[in-house]
Formats: sequence, structure tokens, C-alpha cells
Amino acid sequence: MEEIVINYIERPTLNQPTLVEGLPGVGNVGKLAAEHLVDQIKATKFAEIYSKYFPPQVFVKDDGTIKLVNNELYYHRMEGHDLVILVGDYQGLTPDGQYALSDFVIGICKELGVKRIFTLGGYGLGKMIEKPRVLGAVTELKLVEEMKSIGVTFSKGEPGSGIVGASGLLLGLGKNAGIEAVCLMGETSGYFVDPKSAQAVLGILSKALGITVDLSALDEKAKQIEALTSRLRDTEMPPEPKREDLGYIG
Amino acid sequence: MEEIVINYIERPTLNQPTLVEGLPGVGNVGKLAAEHLVDQIKATKFAEIYSKYFPPQVFVKDDGTIKLVNNELYYHRMEGHDLVILVGDYQGLTPDGQYALSDFVIGICKELGVKRIFTLGGYGLGKMIEKPRVLGAVTELKLVEEMKSIGVTFSKGEPGSGIVGASGLLLGLGKNAGIEAVCLMGETSGYFVDPKSAQAVLGILSKALGITVDLSALDEKAKQIEALTSRLRDTEMPPEPKREDLGYIG
Amino acid sequence: MEEIVINYIERPTLNQPTLVEGLPGVGNVGKLAAEHLVDQIKATKFAEIYSKYFPPQVFVKDDGTIKLVNNELYYHRMEGHDLVILVGDYQGLTPDGQYALSDFVIGICKELGVKRIFTLGGYGLGKMIEKPRVLGAVTELKLVEEMKSIGVTFSKGEPGSGIVGASGLLLGLGKNAGIEAVCLMGETSGYFVDPKSAQAVLGILSKALGITVDLSALDEKAKQIEALTSRLRDTEMPPEPKREDLGYIG
Amino acid sequence: MEEIVINYIERPTLNQPTLVEGLPGVGNVGKLAAEHLVDQIKATKFAEIYSKYFPPQVFVKDDGTIKLVNNELYYHRMEGHDLVILVGDYQGLTPDGQYALSDFVIGICKELGVKRIFTLGGYGLGKMIEKPRVLGAVTELKLVEEMKSIGVTFSKGEPGSGIVGASGLLLGLGKNAGIEAVCLMGETSGYFVDPKSAQAVLGILSKALGITVDLSALDEKAKQIEALTSRLRDTEMPPEPKREDLGYIG
Repeated sequence: MEEIVINYIERPTLNQPTLVEGLPGVGNVGKLAAEHLVDQIKATKFAEIYSKYFPPQVFVKDDGTIKLVNNELYYHRMEGHDLVILVGDYQGLTPDGQYALSDFVIGICKELGVKRIFTLGGYGLGKMIEKPRVLGAVTELKLVEEMKSIGVTFSKGEPGSGIVGASGLLLGLGKNAGIEAVCLMGETSGYFVDPKSAQAVLGILSKALGITVDLSALDEKAKQIEALTSRLRDTEMPPEPKREDLGYIG
Repeated sequence: MEEIVINYIERPTLNQPTLVEGLPGVGNVGKLAAEHLVDQIKATKFAEIYSKYFPPQVFVKDDGTIKLVNNELYYHRMEGHDLVILVGDYQGLTPDGQYALSDFVIGICKELGVKRIFTLGGYGLGKMIEKPRVLGAVTELKLVEEMKSIGVTFSKGEPGSGIVGASGLLLGLGKNAGIEAVCLMGETSGYFVDPKSAQAVLGILSKALGITVDLSALDEKAKQIEALTSRLRDTEMPPEPKREDLGYIG
Repeated sequence: MEEIVINYIERPTLNQPTLVEGLPGVGNVGKLAAEHLVDQIKATKFAEIYSKYFPPQVFVKDDGTIKLVNNELYYHRMEGHDLVILVGDYQGLTPDGQYALSDFVIGICKELGVKRIFTLGGYGLGKMIEKPRVLGAVTELKLVEEMKSIGVTFSKGEPGSGIVGASGLLLGLGKNAGIEAVCLMGETSGYFVDPKSAQAVLGILSKALGITVDLSALDEKAKQIEALTSRLRDTEMPPEPKREDLGYIG
Repeated sequence: MEEIVINYIERPTLNQPTLVEGLPGVGNVGKLAAEHLVDQIKATKFAEIYSKYFPPQVFVKDDGTIKLVNNELYYHRMEGHDLVILVGDYQGLTPDGQYALSDFVIGICKELGVKRIFTLGGYGLGKMIEKPRVLGAVTELKLVEEMKSIGVTFSKGEPGSGIVGASGLLLGLGKNAGIEAVCLMGETSGYFVDPKSAQAVLGILSKALGITVDLSALDEKAKQIEALTSRLRDTEMPPEPKREDLGYIG
């Protein structure tokens, strides 16, 4: 078996598309945001990516059929730049798997003529947060002002430990490949899946893409998590780790 | 050395065979069931699979000679579909080894013209169980009814964590290769090797294959384990892990 | 860099040689025995094996110069079968590294026309032992009687966990390559380097090779270790692990 | 993606250059020393090395732009031998990554016509040290006297566990490639980044290279660390590990 296998359902020709990546990570912020986007805009799946760098695992669906864990690519035609969205069950399990998978995605970006990449993730603070900011990191200095103008925070020294995983590598490898890229990180405790942080990220992303996304479904999820966590807070609260211990995987 | 080496003892021509896989896993349910089947039907070994993904280990047999750890393929001619059975000492040690080995087996399936795969495994409940059910997972919706009709249980949300290892991958990769596949999982505590669960699985499998298998030898083993575990229960019982912690490897 | 690199100092033509392997393992029995043999018969180094499967490490010698960790091959001309001896600083760090290195050695055996392999190791008992037996494991049944006749013990169920590492793989892969092979395992506690066990192994090996080896230097080492361990025994003795926990790496 | 990718900014023709390596390790001594050297002599960056053996990580700079973790090569023209300096964010994460990266650097050395390599590192003592010595290890005996004459200490049995990582491998692989190499190890506690040890190493290196390096900036850093560690010493001091536990990575 090849290290990475892509099965195309369709091979769309797209107009200078923008790639949005949202894979599992801290607070599952990126995954929640990207999957919500796919649902809301009714994006079309056009490819499945399988890899020996994912866990050797199938999920069992409610109807009894299985799904081999994978990453999936969706597209959505829009005014101006079309949209490509990368979502999935897992990131690569090993460092070299992470590199191989992100490099593979950059290869697809080149084939599709992707002009800009947005990677979505969570920034773990290790404490509960009322109003999550969305932090940014970019491949080119000119993108800083553009992102600031739509509400992205650039804060010196944050995230101190850098960005680990696909959300970081797609910027690093994208830059080497000459593709503009922005990472949007929603602040999150890192203890729970965090739909509120995903909402914040998606709010910024909608502005960047010039689209309107209904966030009410995430609102519902956020309330459920809030109810759950406030019950937990009353009983057993995990101690706040020191700031320097916090990793970031997005 | 190649990643995976197959030594053929014989190259049988088989009639649209069915593959049955039973490798070590939770409660060793799959391995017990498949090896019992090989014994009972006196299947013929036709190939040995060696791999650097297995532990670097030889076993010492009672006569003082060694056996390099491997997986083995047996066949058995039958009315209608012939049978191929995959048993072995180990599964691949690493995720990419798991993928490589399962992909290799799917390659053999294609060569042999395999039409359907049954993978056998245990479903760890983390508690003792009197009458194990056999849960199912399939590659195609039409197989659900067929399996239900011979006593397989399909239960929404079970196994919640999916199926990890060869029993899962052969379904996932089999589906991608266009081969129908069914995973049969016998409920088991997961603490001990579980011949009773293997019996349950083999009971279902016999119906699916239309053969009769004498299960009394497993009965004997089950009684021995029962005697052992009931002694253990009186002294030190492992605490019941929470349901969500239970992995499944088959 | 290639996975494994061999630098030949000399390319000797040898007469149907016997390979003796002694690498680090339980009680360092195999390494002690094989290095003692090299010293006593003044064998000639003819090749160095480097590999990315060894630790990324150099040793600093007493004169301040370094030595990249490696395995080394020596030869010694004899009546009848010449001798090739494999010694080294490490075994492969990973399972696939173990396979790759042992397969590489089997390749060298084929080139050199090796007719028989002896692998030397320790068999960890988890308790102090007065008079270590030497257990055997072989690739062909006919070797059992031959080895018994020179004092090797074959004991049903020992070692229960098989033989892990080069001492096992060279038998397993040797068998597949049609080369006779014998593993000689000296009983040892497994807690300390064990020259007494190495002596026992070397006693048997000398008989098998038809040579005389002065074991007095090992005697000296054994006394030093004995003095050390008896002091330790008086203060803090590690608890005896259960038999089934004992692995074997040779 | 290739295992290792090098992006050349410039391809300088250099006069029989000397390579200086300083990557992260014990007390970050080598990294501190080499980066200070780059700063002081205003060396010119000519290449960036990316690798899947590094962590899948980008750093976020103060201006909001990212940097994919890498190693970097600088050059500096001098009387006699030009200088090439290797610095970086990380060493390879795995043993085989370490080998691959060091082998890659040796390949570059051959291309550039490097005549001598200096690797810089820390030698962890596990206790605070007032006046760090600089220990040496070399590829050829004739280098011992030369290094002693400029103040390098060669101490039998130190470092007992050898030299692990790039600082060791570049000597081992350099020797095999016929390139003279010296490892300079500054004594350090191993508990903190140690600019004082880096100063000691750089003092020796300057003599070896025949250059003058202003060490006052390191002096400043050393004072800061000293202030920090003396505060720590008053509160919680890590226990002194036994000598034989100390690894060395440089």
C-alpha cells in the first residue's frame, strides 16, 4: 500500500480556490468549525484520503456499515475564489506522517491552483475562557494587517510553543511552495471540545471568505458543553497547568 | 529483507473462496475461533507470512526446534465457496505495519478470487459476561439483514470506539477493493482468553458458511478458564473500567 | 545513508565457515562469550557494520579518539570449518531494525558459504543461580541429539517466551535460508553481567567447534561480579519476578 | 516529501572550510555557542534544511509570521580556512533521523570541501559547576595534542556514556568519510541553559579557529541564568542524579 492513497469521487475544475483545513486538535476547534462550514454551505465531497499514518481503525456507523478512518476533501463554488475544505477523523500519528500528509495536501493545492490556505485550530489556555479571541499566524507580513482588519488578534509571544500539526505545517510547507497561508486559532481551555471557540473562528473565517454562515447549530452545541462543564466545575476541576506546559496541536 | 515475505507451500486453485481471519486480539477470541476451525475441518496450510512488522522473535517448540513468528494461510475445499483461513502469532506491531499487512492480505484475496471476508474478534466489555452476544459490522448495507438472520446483533453505538487492527482494516481495505466483508465480534470481558466467546462467534460463522463445527473442545477450554477466573474472582477482581475507555483490537 | 553499511577491511576466502554470534542481551552472556572467544583465538577483524538502527552514538576511547557504535566481524582459520564471529556494541533498536540487521547477516553468511550458525545468549531466570545450565534451540531436529551429546539441555517449555532478538532471528531467518543454526543460552539471573554463564556457554561451544579456549580470564571476571553481587545481596536484593514475566533477548 | 530538503539561498565557493556545529542539547551549550558565533562574526546564511525528522511545528515570530522549524547553514570568509556554521531549532527526533541528518551534513561537507569539523556540546554533570572545563573527543590521535595545547581537557572515562546525537555522529560519520573532527564539550549541570559553559567552549573554539569573539553578551546571559538558578537553589533543588545515569546529547 502506498503511504497515502487518494480516491477521487470527482475531479472538479475550480477557480483559484481557497483551502480551509480543520482537523482534530486542541478542543477540536478546527474540526468543529470546518465540519460546520461543510454542513452549512452544503459543500460537495470530491476525494477521500487514506493513509498508513492514520490509526488502523474503522468506525461502525449507526446502520452497521463501517468507514475506514480518513481525511476528506470538499469543494464549493463561489463568486471569486472557490472553496476547498479539508476535514477528517485524524491527523498523522507520527511526526514524519504529519509531514508526509501535509506535503501531500500541498501537492493537491498546487494541482487545484489554490491561492490561499486557512488552517483552523484551537489555542489551549489551560483555563476556562469567557470570550475566546482568535489569534493569527501568517506566512507573509502583508497578511497581518488584512487579518487584523477582520478581527484577528496578533499577540507577541502567543502561541509561545508555536503551532504543531497540520495547522502549522500547511503554513510552513505552504510558504515554501509559494502559497499564502493563515492560521486562525480560537482560544480554548483545551479540556473539552469547544464549539464556542469554533464559532469565534468561523465568525472570522466568514468575513475572510465573504460568506455568511449560520452559527446557531454551534450555539446549541456550545450550550450543551457549557451545561456539562459547569456541572463538572462544581465537582472536580482539573488543576490549571502552567502556561509553559501547554502544547498546541491544530 | 522485504517488509513482508510470503512462502508458498502450495498454490491451490480455489473456487470463489471465503476468507476467515482470526488473529490475536481482545480475549484472543478471533484467534481461538479461527484456530479451532482449522483443527476441526483439518484445513491444509499453504503459505507462511513473515514480516519485519512482527516481533523479532522465535518460539521454541517442545522438540527443541524453533518457529519464526508468522501468520499462516490454510485452505479447505467445500461445496460452493472454498475456505481460506488466516491465523497467526501476532498482528503488526505498529499502525503502518497493520496497514501494510492487511493490504498484503487483501492482495492475496484478489489473487485467490476471494468473494467475501469474515474477520473474527472480541468486543471487550470490561466486565464478566454470562451469555456473550456476537456483534457485527459490515461493508455493505445488504449484509446487515443477512447477518441478522443468522443471529448477529447490530447495536447502534457499539463498538463505540470502532474496530482497531486487522479485523477492522480488512473490512476497510476490503471495501475499497470491492470485496464484501463482515466482522463478527464476540462479547468478552477482555481480561482473559475467552473460549466461550470464541464458541459464540464460531456458532454464527458455521451458519454463515453452512458447515458444522464440533465446539466441544472449546467447551472444555471454557470450563478450565471459568474455573480459573472464578478462583480469581474470589480473591482479586480487576476494577471495571469505564465503558468509554475500552478499546477494541481484533 | 543506507540502512546498513558494511566496511570491509579484508575479504577473506573461508572454508565452509561456522558463524558464532554474541551481541548484547540478558546478562550480556552472548557478548561476553563471543568477545572472549575473539580474544583467546586472536581472531582477525575483517568488517565493520554501521547502521541507522543502532543508537546515534560514539564512544570515547581512553586515548581521546572516538568509535562509532557498530557490529564487527572476525574470522579465524581452523582445521575443517573456519570460524566467523559477530560481536558488537548494540543490537538493532527497533523490531524492523532487528529484522533488517539479522537479514543482512544472513546475506553475509550466504556470501561466505556459512554452513552452521551458533547464536549465544543468556536465559534470564530472575533469581541467582549456582550452576548455570546451557539450554538449546535448533533449526532442525537432527541437531538436538548432537547438541545433547555435548551437554546442551533441551527442556520442554523453556524458554517459554521464545527467543527475542538476533539470537532468535538468526535461527528463524537462517532456517528460511537453509542454514543450520543452534542457539546456546546460558542460565543467568538477568540482573548482572554474568561471566559465569558466559563460561558455561563457551564450554559447550568449544566442544561443538572442537577447539580449546582458556576460560580463566572469565573466571577472574566472574569472581569480581560475585564479590559485587554478594555485597549487594546483603543490602538490597531485587525481588524475584514471576517466571512468566521474564523476557529473553539474546 | 523527501526525508531531508535543503533550500539554498546562495551557493558560496569556500576555501577549505571548517564546519562548526551547534545544535540543541544538554544545557543548550552547543546551540548557544554556535549562535553567538554567528551573531558576532555576522556570518551569512546560505541554506535552510527541512526534514520530516524534525517535529511537525512552526514557530510564530513577533511580527506574526511563521517559521517552519529547521537547521541553517551560515558561512564566513576568513584568512586560511573559511568557516561554515550549522545551527538549528532541533536535532532529529529518532535515531534513524539522527543518522540521516548527520549523514546529510557530511554530504554537504564533502561538497564544500570541508577539512575539519568542530561539534559543540554540553557535558552534563548533574551538579552545579563553578568553572566548567571543556572536554574533547577526536577522530584522530594527532588531534589530541593539538587540542590539549589550546586548553581542551582529555579525561580517561569521560564522558563515560559516549556522545549521543549530532555532536557524536558527525565525528563518527566524518571519520568514516575521511574528515578530521573534534567534539568540544563544556561541562554543565544539565539542568538549565548554560551560557557560562557556552562561553568556555567558545573560548577554546576561538583559539582553534584563530579568531577573536566578544563573549560579553554571553556574560550577560550567564548572569541572568545565575540569578535565576540561585533563587531556585534557595527553594527547590533537583537531587543530584548518580553519575552513571547521565546521558549526553550534544
